[in-house]
Amino acid sequence: MNAYATLEHRFARLSALGDAGGILGWDQQTIMPLGAADRRAEQLATLAVLSHEILTATETADLLGTAEQGATQLAAWQQANLREMRRDFTHATALPPDLVEARSKAASACEIAWRQARADADFPAIAPLLAEVLTLEREAGTAKGAALGLSPYDALLDGYDPGMRQSRIDTLFADLRAEFPALLAEVLDRQRARGPIRPLDGPFPTATQRAIGQRLMAMVGFDATRGRLDVSTHPFCGGATDDVRITTRYDEDDFSVALMGVLHESGHALYEQGRPRDWLSQPVSAARGMTLHESQSLIFEMQACRGRAFVTHLAPMLREAFGRSGPAWEADNLYRAYTHVEPGFIRVDADEVTYPAHILLRYGMETALIAGDMKVADIPGAWNDGMKQLLGLDVPNARLGCLQDIHWHAGSFGYFPTYTLGAMAAAQLFAAAGAAEPGLMDAIGRGDFTPMLRWLRTNVHAKGSLLTTDELLTEATAAPLDGTLYRAHLRERYLSPQAEDGR
Amino acid sequence: MNAYATLEHRFARLSALGDAGGILGWDQQTIMPLGAADRRAEQLATLAVLSHEILTATETADLLGTAEQGATQLAAWQQANLREMRRDFTHATALPPDLVEARSKAASACEIAWRQARADADFPAIAPLLAEVLTLEREAGTAKGAALGLSPYDALLDGYDPGMRQSRIDTLFADLRAEFPALLAEVLDRQRARGPIRPLDGPFPTATQRAIGQRLMAMVGFDATRGRLDVSTHPFCGGATDDVRITTRYDEDDFSVALMGVLHESGHALYEQGRPRDWLSQPVSAARGMTLHESQSLIFEMQACRGRAFVTHLAPMLREAFGRSGPAWEADNLYRAYTHVEPGFIRVDADEVTYPAHILLRYGMETALIAGDMKVADIPGAWNDGMKQLLGLDVPNARLGCLQDIHWHAGSFGYFPTYTLGAMAAAQLFAAAGAAEPGLMDAIGRGDFTPMLRWLRTNVHAKGSLLTTDELLTEATAAPLDGTLYRAHLRERYLSPQAEDGR
Repeated sequence: MNAYATLEHRFARLSALGDAGGILGWDQQTIMPLGAADRRAEQLATLAVLSHEILTATETADLLGTAEQGATQLAAWQQANLREMRRDFTHATALPPDLVEARSKAASACEIAWRQARADADFPAIAPLLAEVLTLEREAGTAKGAALGLSPYDALLDGYDPGMRQSRIDTLFADLRAEFPALLAEVLDRQRARGPIRPLDGPFPTATQRAIGQRLMAMVGFDATRGRLDVSTHPFCGGATDDVRITTRYDEDDFSVALMGVLHESGHALYEQGRPRDWLSQPVSAARGMTLHESQSLIFEMQACRGRAFVTHLAPMLREAFGRSGPAWEADNLYRAYTHVEPGFIRVDADEVTYPAHILLRYGMETALIAGDMKVADIPGAWNDGMKQLLGLDVPNARLGCLQDIHWHAGSFGYFPTYTLGAMAAAQLFAAAGAAEPGLMDAIGRGDFTPMLRWLRTNVHAKGSLLTTDELLTEATAAPLDGTLYRAHLRERYLSPQAEDGR
Repeated sequence: MNAYATLEHRFARLSALGDAGGILGWDQQTIMPLGAADRRAEQLATLAVLSHEILTATETADLLGTAEQGATQLAAWQQANLREMRRDFTHATALPPDLVEARSKAASACEIAWRQARADADFPAIAPLLAEVLTLEREAGTAKGAALGLSPYDALLDGYDPGMRQSRIDTLFADLRAEFPALLAEVLDRQRARGPIRPLDGPFPTATQRAIGQRLMAMVGFDATRGRLDVSTHPFCGGATDDVRITTRYDEDDFSVALMGVLHESGHALYEQGRPRDWLSQPVSAARGMTLHESQSLIFEMQACRGRAFVTHLAPMLREAFGRSGPAWEADNLYRAYTHVEPGFIRVDADEVTYPAHILLRYGMETALIAGDMKVADIPGAWNDGMKQLLGLDVPNARLGCLQDIHWHAGSFGYFPTYTLGAMAAAQLFAAAGAAEPGLMDAIGRGDFTPMLRWLRTNVHAKGSLLTTDELLTEATAAPLDGTLYRAHLRERYLSPQAEDGR
């Protein structure tokens, strides 16, 4: 077997180990008995350590070197695969083993303590542990940066979104930041002028919500022979290759959380289910990064399914399933409910318009934290100032403030911006799909996602990691990542004359 | 770290990998979407290959050699642990790698084809694949036998029940075989004389059966914070350390299958949950072997829960749960139903009295197959002759005959006898427990399994693999494995004067 073929074999093994970890992780968050927690952590750590050993072995380095010398004789996809192998190797070997271990332990300790600190709204209780995590993440950023020729923050960002850089994000977010206050004020004015939304009174039985969720999954094209829908406290899309498992949570007083959540996670799942099958166990088949991944959840949830056309299709389905009727259940009122804007403290509960404010806040803070321009002790003050400035809210406590998200406490710096970058990419892709498939919007209005999924399969999912995010977007939408269409989408949906009457 | 400590670390890693495989295997048989089957096989194979590589590495051999030289300085449990490590190593290294792979592939191919062949009752369709499996199992037995100084069948048997030998089983089964025809004839005569059992008419809703099952699990001492109850086509006890998962299947026309199945699997689960915690990730903490494992399922299902005392306690629970009453639901009729004897074709549906006949048949055939005294082509004829001779039945087709069990088709030779050896051990242990804990039978009659479980925890579960099966039985029951009490139990339950009136 030549060097490249041996590498494929080696990375297929890593893929299988990653898949094993994916199922164990899903199980941990959905159905695992509580007493199994310690052993499960042990199992996951063992899989991670073995994978790291295989990936960073001297033999891997030698094989990569040999294969790269003969790279011109490889097919294009193999060359891309080899590039991704090298990328994984560089990220993994950039960190000295003791830093890998220290980082993992500090993040675990902080994450566990964070659950209690959040419940108690007690930031000082977590601050020393978070400071340790930050110190190690800054070290990791510096070490990875040295290997990749990047600044520390860019090096961390590159782990979530290959090729993305802080300078790019600064530019993309500058326009958003400039436009945001006026946009929000205008949206709230408009909304106020229309008067209150009629309430949708529960209860909405979990079984009915689940049945509708499964129907929606089938509608958007989720392949139920290669995935599942289950329940977890924090909804996610996980599992393994050919076994993509999404979760949601059910609130019997409010069905919209579960249903829109299912559509959001289905978007992630469709990306995973649509990865190129010929190279399924190879790095080149993996989804490109978190920006594109989030674009796939948001193109379904936000672009397509909160649009007037789909909500109009959804309305009679909901009336029938829940056995309700009357003005509150007309499409117009449901559409208003699904596009209601209201500044709030919690990111994961935020509407489409205020969501980016939560990201701008976190992005500004985490870049400063990694650069060393902000200290952990400054977090609550900076957070509360930012919330006041961006959304006009006085944060009453740290549970509703800087303790709400797990990310930093689990050692994730560089992840937050991908949510809003994904929203931008979703707007670009949805516009391009609509232009390329003229019947797409009408089809969505009939609950038919075939044209949309067909376009995404070809232009996004089937690309795996062949291209960078910008290359993929340029091929698919004739432009690299850009926020213009996203801001246009917000104005169109929330401020155009049609926003009030439907279109 | 000294050699022994390094080995502990290495075997803890193997334990974590085994646990990961246990959860993935459970998932595969319970909730995995069908389309994930190929990838799941890949994940399980990767875990198995990695484990095999770690176990058989030159480094393991060197560490074992060094540790054994200093063994006298180790604590007793560490010495036992080292002995078990060596055992695992010897079994794993006895086979050349190409035989390991060929064996695994032949068994997979045969097992898959077997599902179809069984459905079609078509033995000739599977015969060539089974012949290949048999050839490789004979080779494996010969290779392991050479390493262990054992005959091929003993070497295979040793993989399921360390220390068990064919000569032992021949002796243990000889008395059973001699006594069986007269015992069965007499039991059937007695039963006939009592007239028909009143039928228990369904339907029995699955949800109610599940609720009773969970109540029974709690009653026998199953720790639900470290395990689960789910559904699968073929009930089993699996999962991982501190995460012991049992399954059952529900028949809405007959609740007894699910409930007795839950008690049976709970017995297995209690053994796993009771393993010594101080060495939980080490080989010495593992359950001793399949004979003792089966003894733990049968001591709960057969010895305790099909006994008159427990069925009398169960009767009002069932009446209340299913909302039934009348003569059919009186303890006497339920006890007769739970101890009904009837020769049948299918082993897994067999009652306590006819079950050993199914094992005698398979044991005789598989020893002949491994010895080369019987060919695959002879299986149907020998099977049908045996069923006629042992149970007086004419096997109508191979689905109800030699194709019913997966074992041989999946490459398991040497497993079948442990079912009946386990029944013998269960009778021995139950008698000893009753003698040691005088209130044990009365407690069971009140649904209180505390004395029984306390005795099993101390005398069986907490022993892990410290002792051989015979050593453990000798310590616990003052005798090595022996069939006398088992045969006495059958006569007592089915032929004594009390058998008709309860006791």
